Amino acid sequence: MQEEGFTGILIRSPANIFYFTGYMGPGLLLVSVDGPPILYVYPLDYELAQNTCIDQVQISQLGMESSLKDVIESIPDSVKVKLGFDFMSAEDYLRLSEYLGNSLTPASKQVWRLRMIKDSDELEKIRKASEISSRCMELARDLIEDGVMESEVKAEVMKEMLKLGAEKAAFDIIVASGPRSSLPHGGLGDRMMKSGDVVVVDLGAVYQGYCSDMTRTFYIGSDPDDKIKEVYEVVSRAKKAAEEAAAIGVKVSELYEKSYEEIASKGYGEYYIHSLGHGVGIEIHEPPRVFRGVDEILSEGLVITIEPGVYLPGKFGVRIEDTILIRRDRIETLTSAPYDLELG
Amino acid sequence: MQEEGFTGILIRSPANIFYFTGYMGPGLLLVSVDGPPILYVYPLDYELAQNTCIDQVQISQLGMESSLKDVIESIPDSVKVKLGFDFMSAEDYLRLSEYLGNSLTPASKQVWRLRMIKDSDELEKIRKASEISSRCMELARDLIEDGVMESEVKAEVMKEMLKLGAEKAAFDIIVASGPRSSLPHGGLGDRMMKSGDVVVVDLGAVYQGYCSDMTRTFYIGSDPDDKIKEVYEVVSRAKKAAEEAAAIGVKVSELYEKSYEEIASKGYGEYYIHSLGHGVGIEIHEPPRVFRGVDEILSEGLVITIEPGVYLPGKFGVRIEDTILIRRDRIETLTSAPYDLELG
Repeated sequence: MQEEGFTGILIRSPANIFYFTGYMGPGLLLVSVDGPPILYVYPLDYELAQNTCIDQVQISQLGMESSLKDVIESIPDSVKVKLGFDFMSAEDYLRLSEYLGNSLTPASKQVWRLRMIKDSDELEKIRKASEISSRCMELARDLIEDGVMESEVKAEVMKEMLKLGAEKAAFDIIVASGPRSSLPHGGLGDRMMKSGDVVVVDLGAVYQGYCSDMTRTFYIGSDPDDKIKEVYEVVSRAKKAAEEAAAIGVKVSELYEKSYEEIASKGYGEYYIHSLGHGVGIEIHEPPRVFRGVDEILSEGLVITIEPGVYLPGKFGVRIEDTILIRRDRIETLTSAPYDLELG
Repeated sequence: MQEEGFTGILIRSPANIFYFTGYMGPGLLLVSVDGPPILYVYPLDYELAQNTCIDQVQISQLGMESSLKDVIESIPDSVKVKLGFDFMSAEDYLRLSEYLGNSLTPASKQVWRLRMIKDSDELEKIRKASEISSRCMELARDLIEDGVMESEVKAEVMKEMLKLGAEKAAFDIIVASGPRSSLPHGGLGDRMMKSGDVVVVDLGAVYQGYCSDMTRTFYIGSDPDDKIKEVYEVVSRAKKAAEEAAAIGVKVSELYEKSYEEIASKGYGEYYIHSLGHGVGIEIHEPPRVFRGVDEILSEGLVITIEPGVYLPGKFGVRIEDTILIRRDRIETLTSAPYDLELG
């Protein structure tokens, strides 16, 4: 903070507030060069903040009608000289700038630099979230068959996730079958699965505030046609190439390029329509984006997904994904479930 | 748009994009005075956009590495004279302002003016979401008993919600028992319910993109003590007072004041620590906030929650909530489930 000349930083994203305080909810955390950090919460959240916030942070209860501007007016001028913020809407920025002039300065990069590298306590939670996801994926695999609705699989998996101790799903579980499997995000709607379908299942659990993320692709029936086998094989190879390239000191863009080369070499480059992966932690999508042109270097404690995919519009799609941890000497795959395309 | 002198509006919130186009996902919608609206999406979402976007909107595929700035550079100067936006981060705003000067102008109020009033197609979806929520609440009521974990109720209810046709829950289902019932948001964690507990259940389903929201409070066992009965009674009366005051032309703040008067008259004013309610639609929390000082007027087609609560820290809390529709001649309560405090 001092290195960059900030006299104070306003932390407003609930994920960042949770990272620094242990309290998960709406509020405002002020970190300043003078005095202890202060967490401002509305009366609604005061008891929860008292129960969960670490001792080093002072808790201040806002009035029910207080605004962000009221808080800022109440803090000492010395803290407002160069006031960083992690996140703010343009409308709030414009309102506050009228009062603060040029003092307000984006500081999200500084916060992400801390959050990107996970400590052992965070890794324990991500590991547990990954175990829950892995068991849920095995359940999904068991449930998928001809005549079953996608929504039934989602419902059973969601129930299992909560029973295994997850607080919630990290994102809406995707069960996308048949032609819907070529939509990476699945989209709204439901479908009865049938023999001959490719089915993409993408899920992640949240455990004690931390996420995991994984995808498997299945085929209903025996003996998928050659095109499906070929695409499955090329995506598997792209994933392996990226994982083999992963080591401390390597740029994340290199992982993407390795996966792209595999896919493009079989003529599917134009159907690989997303990045290779993303950071995972308190949020399901964190920096770094694992993609072309991203210079971030792999470091110990970074947790990212590796999830190449190939999508043939109106036909089918294949994606295979694990959450991995960069360790000093190797990568560790945190999620695990069989990789077989064929069920049973 | 023309009334306020906008030459173009950038729509970036996925909820707003869904409202105007039927496509739900990331992207950018440009509405301009020259030519048709254009929906910009990344390759990842192009097929879904083609399948779901209304015909009146042109779809343009972005390059995988295109930025918001690239899109803006590509649009005609005549559209950039006064460019409104629904939502933008301060960082994006600062980046774009360097290029656009003072042209960028917040326009979220104009969009909310449209979204606040629901048409019959939207109401049909909110009705269905409310029916699903109501059935889920009845299931929760059946499951709550001494010895059951809060997470088990959440898991069964979540499964039922998806089986009944919801795409997802509108927010993490809250089952907060015993002393946890005094935390309006429940917080992380799990607890085994036992006789003598007050249990607050707050849930909502999403159906075809539209939300519903409801809360009931239960007591496990027979003959709750007088304090619990008294608080339950005062919250019930506060809800009734607000509903009786609701009619076209009344300010939303008046509904809050009616509910506050009831609660304060019994000495619980300081324990009523949130607003009376909020708008409900594509998002679970929409304007108007139903609270002190909010001048918004009730109009036909407005859908809001009515959810007074009283929370005694460390002891118990009570909240009762329904989603209501303002109709020409009366209010209609869209969610329904028994209001009895005692189970069975």
